[in-house]
Amino acid sequence: MNILIIGGVAGGASAATRARRVNPEANITILEKGPAISFANCGLPYHLGGEIKKREKLLVATPELFKNRFGIDVYTDTEALKIDRANKTVAAFRKTDNASLSFSYDKLIISTGSKLRVLPVFNENFQNVFSLWSLKDLDNSLEYINTHSPKKAVVIGAGFVGLEIAEQLTQLGLKVSLVEKAPQVLGPLDAEMASFIEQELLENGVDLYLGKEVTKVDSNKTTTSNILKQITLDDNTTVDTDLVFWGIGVLPESKLAVEAALNIGTSGGIVVNEFQQTSDENIYAVGDASECIYAPTNRKAPIPLAGPANRAGRTAGEHAASGKSQLKQKVQGTAIVRVFKKTAAITGLSVRACKNASIHYEVSFISANNHAGYFPGASELIIKLLFNPSDGKILGAQIIGEEGVDKRIDIISTILHFGGNANDLASLDLAYAPPFGSAKDPVHIAAYTILNHLDARPKLISPYANLDNFQVIDVRTSTERDKLPLANSIHIPIDDPSGDIRGRLDQLDKSKETVVICHSGKRAHILASMLCGMGFIDVFNNAGGMMMRSRCRH
Amino acid sequence: MNILIIGGVAGGASAATRARRVNPEANITILEKGPAISFANCGLPYHLGGEIKKREKLLVATPELFKNRFGIDVYTDTEALKIDRANKTVAAFRKTDNASLSFSYDKLIISTGSKLRVLPVFNENFQNVFSLWSLKDLDNSLEYINTHSPKKAVVIGAGFVGLEIAEQLTQLGLKVSLVEKAPQVLGPLDAEMASFIEQELLENGVDLYLGKEVTKVDSNKTTTSNILKQITLDDNTTVDTDLVFWGIGVLPESKLAVEAALNIGTSGGIVVNEFQQTSDENIYAVGDASECIYAPTNRKAPIPLAGPANRAGRTAGEHAASGKSQLKQKVQGTAIVRVFKKTAAITGLSVRACKNASIHYEVSFISANNHAGYFPGASELIIKLLFNPSDGKILGAQIIGEEGVDKRIDIISTILHFGGNANDLASLDLAYAPPFGSAKDPVHIAAYTILNHLDARPKLISPYANLDNFQVIDVRTSTERDKLPLANSIHIPIDDPSGDIRGRLDQLDKSKETVVICHSGKRAHILASMLCGMGFIDVFNNAGGMMMRSRCRH
Repeated sequence: MNILIIGGVAGGASAATRARRVNPEANITILEKGPAISFANCGLPYHLGGEIKKREKLLVATPELFKNRFGIDVYTDTEALKIDRANKTVAAFRKTDNASLSFSYDKLIISTGSKLRVLPVFNENFQNVFSLWSLKDLDNSLEYINTHSPKKAVVIGAGFVGLEIAEQLTQLGLKVSLVEKAPQVLGPLDAEMASFIEQELLENGVDLYLGKEVTKVDSNKTTTSNILKQITLDDNTTVDTDLVFWGIGVLPESKLAVEAALNIGTSGGIVVNEFQQTSDENIYAVGDASECIYAPTNRKAPIPLAGPANRAGRTAGEHAASGKSQLKQKVQGTAIVRVFKKTAAITGLSVRACKNASIHYEVSFISANNHAGYFPGASELIIKLLFNPSDGKILGAQIIGEEGVDKRIDIISTILHFGGNANDLASLDLAYAPPFGSAKDPVHIAAYTILNHLDARPKLISPYANLDNFQVIDVRTSTERDKLPLANSIHIPIDDPSGDIRGRLDQLDKSKETVVICHSGKRAHILASMLCGMGFIDVFNNAGGMMMRSRCRH
Repeated sequence: MNILIIGGVAGGASAATRARRVNPEANITILEKGPAISFANCGLPYHLGGEIKKREKLLVATPELFKNRFGIDVYTDTEALKIDRANKTVAAFRKTDNASLSFSYDKLIISTGSKLRVLPVFNENFQNVFSLWSLKDLDNSLEYINTHSPKKAVVIGAGFVGLEIAEQLTQLGLKVSLVEKAPQVLGPLDAEMASFIEQELLENGVDLYLGKEVTKVDSNKTTTSNILKQITLDDNTTVDTDLVFWGIGVLPESKLAVEAALNIGTSGGIVVNEFQQTSDENIYAVGDASECIYAPTNRKAPIPLAGPANRAGRTAGEHAASGKSQLKQKVQGTAIVRVFKKTAAITGLSVRACKNASIHYEVSFISANNHAGYFPGASELIIKLLFNPSDGKILGAQIIGEEGVDKRIDIISTILHFGGNANDLASLDLAYAPPFGSAKDPVHIAAYTILNHLDARPKLISPYANLDNFQVIDVRTSTERDKLPLANSIHIPIDDPSGDIRGRLDQLDKSKETVVICHSGKRAHILASMLCGMGFIDVFNNAGGMMMRSRCRH
């Protein structure tokens, strides 16, 4: 039996080794157009910035290892050109010796990954403009930095990789300007959560140009070189630069599949079933080249992430080699990025995703320490949860913080896997010792907030909501109000030294819809629950308090 | 409505604030025999060692805050003496003014916590012998350390708190001897996993006396002082010391409940239902004083941990104040401890717990990096999973490592909450970026190992199993074999430079039950799955390889 795999990265290598383990007799071959069977593409920004010191660290596997350990034949520098489904062969070309090769298969696995979306404005061959997609990109850009010592850089695209590049270039000592077409960084997150990362970027000296596109570039052009020196944005702002990195997203690399007339989804990704089989049962597709089922909506979507690609490779390799597969992954779109001292992460649905899929949702926000506040080094976590307001089912989460973000997003991703609700989240028995957490973990507090809402003790109201027609009570201190004012609010500080909160409350209008607000929602909850018990008709806690309201564009 | 709470720690304060939030009109009173309404008892060892610098950090709430914010009356230094169920009153005594007080209740919540098991050998009043249970214990022991500058300390009891004390005293510069009656530290863990922590203690200069009891103590006794100078163990070993801390476990403090004729479990804890109600529906019990349902066995057990106590308090407070409760926690016995650079954690069932409850189990072990190996700072995680060998249901986990232990134990605790199996664990979409994890997380690898076992690709065999009657193949390098020899094994290095593995395998006996072993199980898996495909009748991978086999007492 011949199992042929096109592409070592993005699931291909994982498919090959799994196929070997379930089928020791099969002939397994990988065709990889690049020079390395597989490399740590998620590590590229960190070698650029010197955090990963040695380039060879990025080469996670060698053809020799694949041959000796697994008996897998690897052809590097070999590009697959055409799939002949009728004859079950693949035509390929090897660059190193200009050889035209043909490989026959019983099962074929396409793992061609994705390609960068092109920015038309860079239609010339500039020596100082780079993307960061391949080892060659890395080598070229590093060589340029080492030989030209650029002082200023422009990074175009503020997605996960763009932010990593901006961080690493800043750590190299460059002044970085970050340009993004969308009005926020980190498109998968909701704007008010992304704003914490924008703040972190600004505080670390990165200039932000959000909601801006590059319309023009100017360069110093000679007969031998062409160095981009300035970009112009659509509002006519100009930014001088010595170096440009661009990366505005990726598209599935599905050309071979298109030409072989396999079914392609509207996203451009290859359509597969739960075993990663394409419309031809002998051909599988995995990773960025294929679509996957996005569990929160149960719709097909391209999810260009390493974890899902790796698991898809395992499933495809096992099924191709044995006709069955154990693993059925559920992709939640979980993603994480470190940006200087802050970390941002998401799993499941955002508000935008809920709206696009017409899914009914409500939001909660909390702020809590990552571990016991009395233990040194505690730092703040901000957790946004989206939930179904009728049954409390958790729909998604976004978390910002310095430490422990990854733990909480993974716990909530696990909750999503099981379709769990707020009571499940509140009931988890999580590990507590002072260096690691609190007896009441931030995810418990987040869950409690939802449980309170479901029981109207009190209800939550979105920080995006217009408060004009509400009776608004601000329980913060005067100092807090001076720093971050809130118009048209009644000031009843919860820790009023006079202690006469009851007296003050008696003067309020019980028949009016009332919103209570503090900094993060914690103190407001205390007063709001008191009002619920005093016969106020509709009482709301402003989810996330002024911390979030001040970040929402109304 | 009067809600009376006996005890602020261990769930009492949590019950009080929750009761207030769902019932703004109730009179809520806490009687606390200690001087502080509540304090961070999990933080005591860390203030002893100076890692938490300020004592006031441990005082997490004050009576004034409870009164002003929540309208809750707190009586400190006030000990409840007797519950009169017929008249619904509690008699109490206040130390500060010798006042005899009486409180009436509609709903009573008992949160009296636990008390230390006594060590009879300390039947004298030594000035340098301490437990670490209350703020007073902390103050007394710190004062002794500061005034007498002890050089040597004995810690008796190697549970979670005992290890924290041993670590902190070592960091203070003392030479610590740790004495434990059981043959291992960390009794809830299985011995071979606990052995990693024993190694860490030894490497940090702590002397271990495991499987030993103190039979005799000698002191310098004068008319004004009595300083313990030496302990003698049951094997006649003597250990000189300047300071002793002892803590050999706790017992539920259920005296009031016993005297009030409430139902008490065999463990001594107060029996409660899912709403924390005792056999008297108007009396609740929470925290260490009560039993809880240990989810993995569905049996009642005392679980003296802060997290479950906090959640039980919430449930009881809410139910007492409103007649209903949302939260039904599932206690998995999740616990964690940091010991120098290592962290140990457990959730769910251990081998001992499975045997005690006659639960059928199998074990897997893996070793993997906490995050991408190519990113700086990666460290090893050892994960032991217990699973049901018929359906792959996850029963429990134990994890040792330097970083990221808490994340993985919490993910698996969440899996336990839902009764998830190995396929669920393998399918999780966890957050990956190089600083946080790997595309294939350690918990995925742990799950894959189980999936392989279930499909006999290959099966796992316990590192405790006797290998005498097996054909044993060791795939490690010669260097590894020299360091950690394995008798009666056939040496076939997987990365054999001659490359003739197939030739070597053909000389083996296919009809014999065969065990393949390497260092951690990863390389053995490759060869073992090859043997499965070559028609060997019964092939096993030694779970956890020599890393674990060398730690198991056979």
